[in-house]
Amino acid sequence: MKRRILLRVAFDGTNYAGWQLQPNGLTIEEVLNRELSRLLKEEIRVIGASRTDAGVHAEGAVCVFDTESGIPGDKFCYAINQSLPEDIRAMASNEVALDFHPRKRASIKTYRYQIYNDTFLPPSKRLYYHHVHGKLDIEAMQQAAGFFPGEHDFKAFSKEREDRAAREKRALSGETTEINTVRTIYRSQLSSDGPAIEYLISGSGFLYNMVRIIAGTLIDVGQGRIAWDSIPEILERRDRGRAGQTAPAKGLCLMNCDYNVAIKTEIKYNQDR
Amino acid sequence: MKRRILLRVAFDGTNYAGWQLQPNGLTIEEVLNRELSRLLKEEIRVIGASRTDAGVHAEGAVCVFDTESGIPGDKFCYAINQSLPEDIRAMASNEVALDFHPRKRASIKTYRYQIYNDTFLPPSKRLYYHHVHGKLDIEAMQQAAGFFPGEHDFKAFSKEREDRAAREKRALSGETTEINTVRTIYRSQLSSDGPAIEYLISGSGFLYNMVRIIAGTLIDVGQGRIAWDSIPEILERRDRGRAGQTAPAKGLCLMNCDYNVAIKTEIKYNQDR
Repeated sequence: MKRRILLRVAFDGTNYAGWQLQPNGLTIEEVLNRELSRLLKEEIRVIGASRTDAGVHAEGAVCVFDTESGIPGDKFCYAINQSLPEDIRAMASNEVALDFHPRKRASIKTYRYQIYNDTFLPPSKRLYYHHVHGKLDIEAMQQAAGFFPGEHDFKAFSKEREDRAAREKRALSGETTEINTVRTIYRSQLSSDGPAIEYLISGSGFLYNMVRIIAGTLIDVGQGRIAWDSIPEILERRDRGRAGQTAPAKGLCLMNCDYNVAIKTEIKYNQDR
Repeated sequence: MKRRILLRVAFDGTNYAGWQLQPNGLTIEEVLNRELSRLLKEEIRVIGASRTDAGVHAEGAVCVFDTESGIPGDKFCYAINQSLPEDIRAMASNEVALDFHPRKRASIKTYRYQIYNDTFLPPSKRLYYHHVHGKLDIEAMQQAAGFFPGEHDFKAFSKEREDRAAREKRALSGETTEINTVRTIYRSQLSSDGPAIEYLISGSGFLYNMVRIIAGTLIDVGQGRIAWDSIPEILERRDRGRAGQTAPAKGLCLMNCDYNVAIKTEIKYNQDR
């Protein structure tokens, strides 16, 4: 009997070419498909909630897969960890409805971006922090971060995933040429503990490179290249050229994909500010 | 004019065969000698304060070297970091007296041992934490840790560095066959923050594998294999077989080598307990 299993996965993205299957470089999806197929002796295809970029980490990525196996839902994580490499761990598992689709079902995703703001980057932090050595203006960054919660058009804070040829082809076929770039952000908070800076952002969904461009813009604010109070205007103009740099992948971590949304969307924006 | 420079070094020991030069495997000492010699265009030989094992990390290892270079003492760290790999960083540098020897000069060294006590080890912690999945008795471990401060003979908590042949040869040559295994510990503290357990130990010096055997013994106490109140007896019997396991290298980090000892030795044992 076919069952659908949800896996909560943590990984160190350092040695992977991102989540999604691709011809060049090993991906998280590929390793999970290979090891689950080997374990369950059937061809397994995981469906991920989020296609993280090369080098991005996760503490709470989510995927589902279908299987004929009789292993209890909460035991898959133990079984699969026996054969996964140490830099990918199934942290939990459970059975879900057969029609549960991790990208179509509403969820709140939380990402963390880590910056280390000191002269030198300690070796133990080198894989998980973006190193910025000039002193950052934390207060200005916090003010800027405060503009993101709410429903906004994030076109200025995203990179188009399509190349020109694909876009033109889609236009010719009569599809609308613009994808919807409106997203809702529930939380956008920056805090610092000595040289370690942590930025947390939660939202209903994120555009391609969105968190890395927001983090890069906050760094530009901290370095005085962008005024903290210009964020509303940057959002409004919808022009990628006005937002800041794209911060490097290694500082980014997908912390959580939360599907208990019915209650959560009632949360007031940025409640703990 | 010859000058002696002190470097404070942090490194991720994962990819190194320890500090000290050896025929098999790349060591921290070897990389520092190579890159300093290349930078200063003279043959540089660093002298380390501590010979850490393969896989052990450091946030505050210390070494000195002699040079004819005119670079200001505090600027060497900037210069050398240009050519060091990212997993070795010079965090600070300064000029010291020509007779300053980092192993002969009195110092207080501090080590940290990290344990992750949960079902699964998150990938981002895999290089720096020893994973113990069965629930540990933290209180018993803290009680046991409380017996180490003070002056004790730590023979039971050390591994002999010599092999039998070397020991016999030394005996025949008329040298005393026992090395002095008495050491003074100033601090021995275990704390936990959720599943992350941190053990900090400071002392005038440490025997071979001493911190790893103490940490392993504390784990055996936490798992009920060794009674917390048997530590005084284990110390007294001076028998390695009575102490616990040697905890793996990756959980260990040399945090600091402090040479401002004149004042520090006045500190009461374990003042913050």
